[in-house]
Formats: sequence, C-alpha cells, structure tokens
Amino acid sequence: MRRRGLDVTLFATGDSRFEGELVSVVPVGLNEDPALDPNVFSALHIGELFRRAGDFDLINNHFDWKPLTYALASKMPPLLTTVHGFSSPQILAAYYASAERSFFCSISDADRDPGLDYLATTYNGIDPSEFTFSSAAGEYLCFLGRFHPEKGTHLAIEIAKRAGVRLKIAAIPQDESYFREYVAPHVDGDRIEFLGAVEREARNELLGNALALVHMTTRPERFGLTTIEAMACGTPVLGARMGSLPEIVVDGVTGFLCDSVEEAVSKVPLLASLERKACRARVEREFTVERMIDRYLGAYQRAVDLQVPPPPSAERLRARRHDWWDRPMAFTEIPPKPKNLRFS
Amino acid sequence: MRRRGLDVTLFATGDSRFEGELVSVVPVGLNEDPALDPNVFSALHIGELFRRAGDFDLINNHFDWKPLTYALASKMPPLLTTVHGFSSPQILAAYYASAERSFFCSISDADRDPGLDYLATTYNGIDPSEFTFSSAAGEYLCFLGRFHPEKGTHLAIEIAKRAGVRLKIAAIPQDESYFREYVAPHVDGDRIEFLGAVEREARNELLGNALALVHMTTRPERFGLTTIEAMACGTPVLGARMGSLPEIVVDGVTGFLCDSVEEAVSKVPLLASLERKACRARVEREFTVERMIDRYLGAYQRAVDLQVPPPPSAERLRARRHDWWDRPMAFTEIPPKPKNLRFS
Repeated sequence: MRRRGLDVTLFATGDSRFEGELVSVVPVGLNEDPALDPNVFSALHIGELFRRAGDFDLINNHFDWKPLTYALASKMPPLLTTVHGFSSPQILAAYYASAERSFFCSISDADRDPGLDYLATTYNGIDPSEFTFSSAAGEYLCFLGRFHPEKGTHLAIEIAKRAGVRLKIAAIPQDESYFREYVAPHVDGDRIEFLGAVEREARNELLGNALALVHMTTRPERFGLTTIEAMACGTPVLGARMGSLPEIVVDGVTGFLCDSVEEAVSKVPLLASLERKACRARVEREFTVERMIDRYLGAYQRAVDLQVPPPPSAERLRARRHDWWDRPMAFTEIPPKPKNLRFS
Repeated sequence: MRRRGLDVTLFATGDSRFEGELVSVVPVGLNEDPALDPNVFSALHIGELFRRAGDFDLINNHFDWKPLTYALASKMPPLLTTVHGFSSPQILAAYYASAERSFFCSISDADRDPGLDYLATTYNGIDPSEFTFSSAAGEYLCFLGRFHPEKGTHLAIEIAKRAGVRLKIAAIPQDESYFREYVAPHVDGDRIEFLGAVEREARNELLGNALALVHMTTRPERFGLTTIEAMACGTPVLGARMGSLPEIVVDGVTGFLCDSVEEAVSKVPLLASLERKACRARVEREFTVERMIDRYLGAYQRAVDLQVPPPPSAERLRARRHDWWDRPMAFTEIPPKPKNLRFS
C-alpha cells in the first residue's frame, strides 16, 4: 500500500516490522506474554485506534467483530472490515448490529454471509517470486496443511492408495486424536510419507515436484492459501468442489474439482496432462499480492466515495432473521440456539 | 434516582425490573443462556449505550473497565465510573488509559487505587426497613458470607472456640477445599453450627439475635455489605482492622476493630455492653439507600459541572508507574509481571 503511494498507519504489536507509522499499545503479541490480559489489551488496542479515527480517511479493520462494536459509538471515517472468517455464529450478532457503520470485504465469494452486503472480494495474494515454477509433472500427490478432519488428510490418503500413487504429507498438528486414528496408521514412509511441517525451501520443493496438491476438504474453505502456493509452483490441485475452491481452481485447467473420492481417484491419471504453465499463469493473473492490493484499492475508493454503507435490502434483513443461527460454518461447533434472542 | 426527579435510562438485561426507560440488548443474563457469547453480547450492550451517548447528560458506568475503552473513542457527556472492585491488576491498564475520559467513584475510601483521582466515595446502601432492630444482645457469634480463606471463616471458628461462645455460620460455597479442610471438621451442630445459605427472614433472625457478626477477613474488603446488615439489626461487628471496615464500624461503639485473633477473643466479653441502638443509628445515618443516592447526586453534579476530569497530578502518574503491578488486591491472584509493557 505504501509502495502504491498510500499514507498508511498500522495499529499492531510493537515488534511488527513496518516502515510506515506504527502505533502499538502492546510490545508483543498477547499470546507471548501471559501477564497481558487479552481482553483488556485488545480492547485498549481498539480504543486507541478509534481515539485517533479522525486522523484517517479510511479504516481497514482486519481484527474481526470487536472493533465493530466500537464503531457503533464513534464518529469516524468510512470503516471497511475484511471478514477473515466467522469463528462462530454468535459473532454475526456484532456484524449485523454494525452493518450500518461498516463496509465489508470477503476473502472469497463463497465465504459470504447472506445477511450482509459486501463491497468486494479481496482474495489473499502471494508473491510468486517466492515460489519456483517447475515445468515437469511430479510422481507423487501431496497434502499440505494441518491435521483436522475438515482438511481431509484421510481422504487424501484414501485417494492416493486407491489410485496407486505415493502421497507426501506435510502438516502441523491440530486435532491429535484425528492424527492418531486416521493418519498415523497409514504412514509407512514409502507409499504414505509424513514430513512434519515444511517451510520455505522444503515447501517449495514439496509442492513443485508433486503431481498435484490434494485438497479434499470436508467443509467449505474460506480461502485455500496452499492451493495458490501449489499452482504458483506449476502444480495442479485435486480438490473438493466446495467453498472457495471453484473460484481458485479452473476445473480441467489448473486442477480438478471433485464431488467424491471416487471422482478424485478417476482424475488422478489425468493430472499429468494438465498444463503446468496454466497453473502458474492463473496465480500470476489473480492471486498475487499486487492483485490483492488492486482489489483493496478499488474497495477503499468505493468506501470513500460512498462514505456510509447503503441500507440493507429486505432480503438481507430476512436472511438475518431466519437461518443464521443454524447455518453450518467452517472451523466451529454450532453452539446451542439462544433461548429468546431478538434482533432489530 | 427516579423518585428524586432524575430522568433515568437503564441499560440492562430485558428481564430487569425497572419502571423507567429500559434499554436491553439481551433478554436475560449472559450466564443464563449458554448460546450467548458473553464477550460478543457485553460488547454490543456497551456499543448500544455509546451509540446513544449523546442523549444523556451523564453516564454512570457500573460495568467495570470495558466501557472505558469505548469512552476513549467517543464524544459524549461526562462519564462517571463506579469502581466496584479491581478484579485483577491488568484491568488497571484500562483505567489508566481512560482516566482523562472518566470520573471515578470508589465504594470505600480504602478501595482506591493511588494512580487514579476519585470524585467521591459512594458507599453501598441498604433499606433499613428490611432489617428488624433487636434491642437485646444475643448469645452467639455469627458468620455470614461465602467460604473463602479471605473471608476468614476459620478465624471466626477459632475466636468462638477460644472465647467459649457458640458460632452460627451461614454461607454459600466458593472454595470447596477450604470448606472441607478448615470449616467442616469443626461443625458439630452445637458449638459450631452451619445453616447453609440464609435469605430474608432467616438472615434477619440470624443477624438480629446474634451477640456480634464476626468479620475477620484476611485481605482488605472493598465494602462489607453484611456488616451494615448486621448493624441495621442492632448487632455489632467484631472485625479485622483493614480495608473498608474502619470506615463502617466505629471502634468501641458499633463493634471492635482487631489486629489479631487474640485481640478479637479479648473483645468478646465486651460485646454485650455495646449500645445496639448505636449500631442501627450508624446505618440509618450513613449506609441507607437514600444516603447512597445523596452521595451519587453530589458526584453527578460535580461531574456535570466539571464536564472533563482534571489532569492527574505528577504524584498520581508516579503511582501508576512504580507499584501497581505488585500491589496486593482482594479476590485475585497476582499474575506474572508483564515482560516489557510501557505506559504513557
């Protein structure tokens, strides 16, 4: 943003690396110092931003729902909230309550709540120069991510076994019992190999030399950063047709979108015939940091032009009333319904 | 307040009994409905208040530190925060950060933080007509409260045994292991009797027929509501000389203030000689709801006259920097010191 000529003030921890103006309430991340009460210091962090709100032409909030409740109270420039994911249905209450004060961006078209209006989709972006393009199709499938049923490591294993292709798994632990029950028993160091977590060069090598990245999630993904990293290396994606994946992967060109394990198995023999250059080109066109900035600049300009979000349509309001509580969401358990909550 | 002619808007749960204007974001208390995320809905509750801040001449905050962080951001009428107790050293960060936006009241002179300026002490009050005055001195000591080492049930037991006087205990559970180890072994239903929790008539009777209420706390009390309830019944207080007690109990007149168990034991024979009428009179003069309202109205007037809190003295600022983190506080464990927190 600064490179593009914007005057940016960043509100973040004191150890952030930023060459523009940095405003910090706490010196380090709240999870790095047990004496810092996260509720108190995140509230002070937000309070400090809104205290200075009048200094800015626009505020881009990447800090979820809490700042929205402050926006209810403040006179301020346009607020644009990037929704990086709804962590629970309850937080929708904060989004709905503040929808007249904040514009919203989603990180994929799929990850939108029907009760909210969105100004734009601002896909995440990567720097393609950090990923080495590899022109030759590899001979193994790979899985990259964390161990959780939603990420479908077990499906990747099943697909590899049934297709008779080796699988390399690089992942960080999350759900330990899932790993013990559904992953570990299959790891033999040959057909199914587990590499632990991989970063930078090792990640580049794992992705670049693969036949495909398997991304058979069991719940909709908000955005799949690993899929654009794989494609940047020229590696296609064999993935579930849900969530944001149809926006990222061009079916039959940069990978295959599948509705079942059977379908995925049947696509494995076709993977080597995909143009690896097309994968790289897709990322360079749509999912770079520069494209992300383009999208944000467009959204910022619209927010500044409008100043205030337009009132929601009757359809939006209906969507808020009827089904939000029961709507399935990625990465969360649905809590019990509130007993008698009313929303205006 | 309404009886005194003030136009009061109460922000509270929908099931609150209030004849004035009630504004509710949630229908019931957040601990009564597990589907209501307490962080989300308390933030919306506060946000709704500050959204309407311009409607009021003064806001009296009884909701601890969180609203202070919203006050940083808002243009609003004078804010007066009643500090009902600092639950942890960390929340002082929020009080200090907002001290230029909020006036403060304490609930006793003792429960003041040296880094803050206070407009007034607004002692809690009771309605004396709910407590029956009993002119005859009783023959037993009583303990009323909750089972926690800080409340000193074990000291009340020791004093009763050493003084050769019966003790009746009415309390709600809090620290179970404390109860099992320090209280239960002494309960014999005769010398030491445990009545469970007592409310209304039973409470009135327990207090009114006692020789004294034993209130030998081991950490400073912010305010001891049970001590004014006992005195309203004519029953003196045998209590620890710490915290707010010296402000409530007139030593040698409405009870005795003691620095040790020995001293308390030595005072037991003198309790029957105290004027029970003096105890009742003390409450009627200082600790009624009407006196509480008087004190609040005075504080409200000063806040409205001043509009903005005066800047803190150099001494106050020094008190904030040097010792707040290590200062002992009632009802809380002291967390580890922050590694490298700076305050301006």
